[in-house]
Amino acid sequence: MPNPQYPDMKPHLTTRSLHPESQETPIQFIETDIIYNHLFYRQNHFSYPSLSYSNYWLPINGSVLTQKLLSMQDLLQIPSKTVKVILECAGNKRSFFDPKVFGEQWEKGAISQGYWKGVPLRTLLDLAGIREGAKEVIVEGYDYGKRTDLDSIYTFARSLPLEKALHPDTIIAYEYNNQPIPFKHGYPLRLIVPQWYGMASVKWIKQITITDSNFKGPFQSIDYVYYPHKESNNDAMPVTNINVNSTIQKPLDMDSLNTGKHLIRGIAWTGKGYITKVEVSTDNGQTWSNAKIENRNTGGYDWVSWSYEWSIADKGEYTILSRATDSNNRIQPITPFWNKKGYGYNAIDKIKVKIE
Amino acid sequence: MPNPQYPDMKPHLTTRSLHPESQETPIQFIETDIIYNHLFYRQNHFSYPSLSYSNYWLPINGSVLTQKLLSMQDLLQIPSKTVKVILECAGNKRSFFDPKVFGEQWEKGAISQGYWKGVPLRTLLDLAGIREGAKEVIVEGYDYGKRTDLDSIYTFARSLPLEKALHPDTIIAYEYNNQPIPFKHGYPLRLIVPQWYGMASVKWIKQITITDSNFKGPFQSIDYVYYPHKESNNDAMPVTNINVNSTIQKPLDMDSLNTGKHLIRGIAWTGKGYITKVEVSTDNGQTWSNAKIENRNTGGYDWVSWSYEWSIADKGEYTILSRATDSNNRIQPITPFWNKKGYGYNAIDKIKVKIE
Repeated sequence: MPNPQYPDMKPHLTTRSLHPESQETPIQFIETDIIYNHLFYRQNHFSYPSLSYSNYWLPINGSVLTQKLLSMQDLLQIPSKTVKVILECAGNKRSFFDPKVFGEQWEKGAISQGYWKGVPLRTLLDLAGIREGAKEVIVEGYDYGKRTDLDSIYTFARSLPLEKALHPDTIIAYEYNNQPIPFKHGYPLRLIVPQWYGMASVKWIKQITITDSNFKGPFQSIDYVYYPHKESNNDAMPVTNINVNSTIQKPLDMDSLNTGKHLIRGIAWTGKGYITKVEVSTDNGQTWSNAKIENRNTGGYDWVSWSYEWSIADKGEYTILSRATDSNNRIQPITPFWNKKGYGYNAIDKIKVKIE
Repeated sequence: MPNPQYPDMKPHLTTRSLHPESQETPIQFIETDIIYNHLFYRQNHFSYPSLSYSNYWLPINGSVLTQKLLSMQDLLQIPSKTVKVILECAGNKRSFFDPKVFGEQWEKGAISQGYWKGVPLRTLLDLAGIREGAKEVIVEGYDYGKRTDLDSIYTFARSLPLEKALHPDTIIAYEYNNQPIPFKHGYPLRLIVPQWYGMASVKWIKQITITDSNFKGPFQSIDYVYYPHKESNNDAMPVTNINVNSTIQKPLDMDSLNTGKHLIRGIAWTGKGYITKVEVSTDNGQTWSNAKIENRNTGGYDWVSWSYEWSIADKGEYTILSRATDSNNRIQPITPFWNKKGYGYNAIDKIKVKIE
């Protein structure tokens, strides 16, 4: 008889779409504070691009004093910086909006964290020289294609206001967790914008352009905009900073457990300041207790892990909530801020379990 | 620079739980009428068992004239039978019940299909000789562990009424799609019970026992029972045959599409008879059209593929439904039959799309 293949316990990403590829991390798999490639969520607007790596050049142009064309070798000679950064898709948790909204039905796993190493964007802009009157920096990727709502072909491109582009931790990265950036995550160069939702961190960079006006590409002026009303585009606001948020990783929603002690654990994060408090309720919000924060951070860009030991003697159904507060006194709301495209969901996290 | 790893487009299973391992097939990946190992959903009650393959024997005992102990060699010498069978987890689509029920929150992908080759169970029972008064045949697996609701250790075991056990297509399988059964799907031997939900098809068979009474194991008398009432166990009925059902594979729920022509496609199946009709509605059930059935079957155990070409000129939101009817005039209901453990969901399938 043939040798049985021993079970491969390697976890899988959950696919939301294949064309383009969109896959999220099952949240219970996140057990470290670094997400390696095989568990890194994938969110794409188009097919993966093809680009010439052997002849790769990075142009810096637009409102500059001197246009630049940098090779990888040039970049590697510039003093580097490493930042530990959360990337969270602006649509993370979209499936929980009620009423539901169109788009990838992300659950809680379109989030990752790791070490990005590269060159501050500011260094490159200074090399080229920023002309008077510059307003924004456009970063364009090699990925392109058709949108369902427009007729032309577009590349994925996003702009940053000059102030964010010049922030010393906004980098043009060439390594992720001490390795070249994985192809699906932007190889060879990716913009990394700490504290902003992931759409800002443009992959497969094709060029960097300084502009005197406000960039109006569709991924800036149609997508990644909060539209609070279903029937109009009034009161629109751009999606930028990550909202204060938390996720219960264990137990799983709708799980059945024994009576006894259970460790409730999860992560909490914010795009402004740092997490100061995570509270847990096991009675659907009637009472709250402070969770233990494992790796309190005070100003980095990473999440905290938290846990709460729950002793439960009575059989029955329980609704468990988690609620994070950050150093700017932002706190997760009971009701999410509904918006037509489903961005920035950060309501109090909620699961139900049965004790039997 | 290192050579980029070219994107690996191999799809992944969606993990619902790791301990035990429960993973489903993203329904849009099913493009063939045979599901190979890498896309075969996994549903387990316990950890994967360890068993001795080099010294594997199959006991047949209980209410028999002669106890038997068969080697794999013995089985391979018995005339074999190959059946193309759907396996569907009884909890498939559980996540769509409203109110929600506890248990794995399966979406639509806890279903598979393929060719199982083995020996009719009937041949083995005849070899041992069925004693007068026999009522059921218990098949026990090597997998075992603790349940959250009981104190002892149990193996996974299920019984079949004698009539189903003697059906010529109920087999003890040793091959799946012309290969030894993959370890995670029951290697070396798995009971295959066509037309019943997957719990009946016991994996990693340890022994077969004929009994004069009604087997009361927890996977027979607690789980895999329809309990129609939330607060009592009244009116309980065992889960057996697969319900008539259909699934829309494309487009995906909450997708955005262009105006123009779109192929709506899916599968339909039943555990009694065969599919006679699949209807599609693109206006939330106001009007229905017949879908084209690609591989009409008239009595096998496999699903049919269906498609419907939709021409849509007007932008807006659309609710698309599919509804199958079988040769016993069973038809998918508008409202699912709610039951406490969430089995047998077969309401009309429903997705929403936006045309823009």
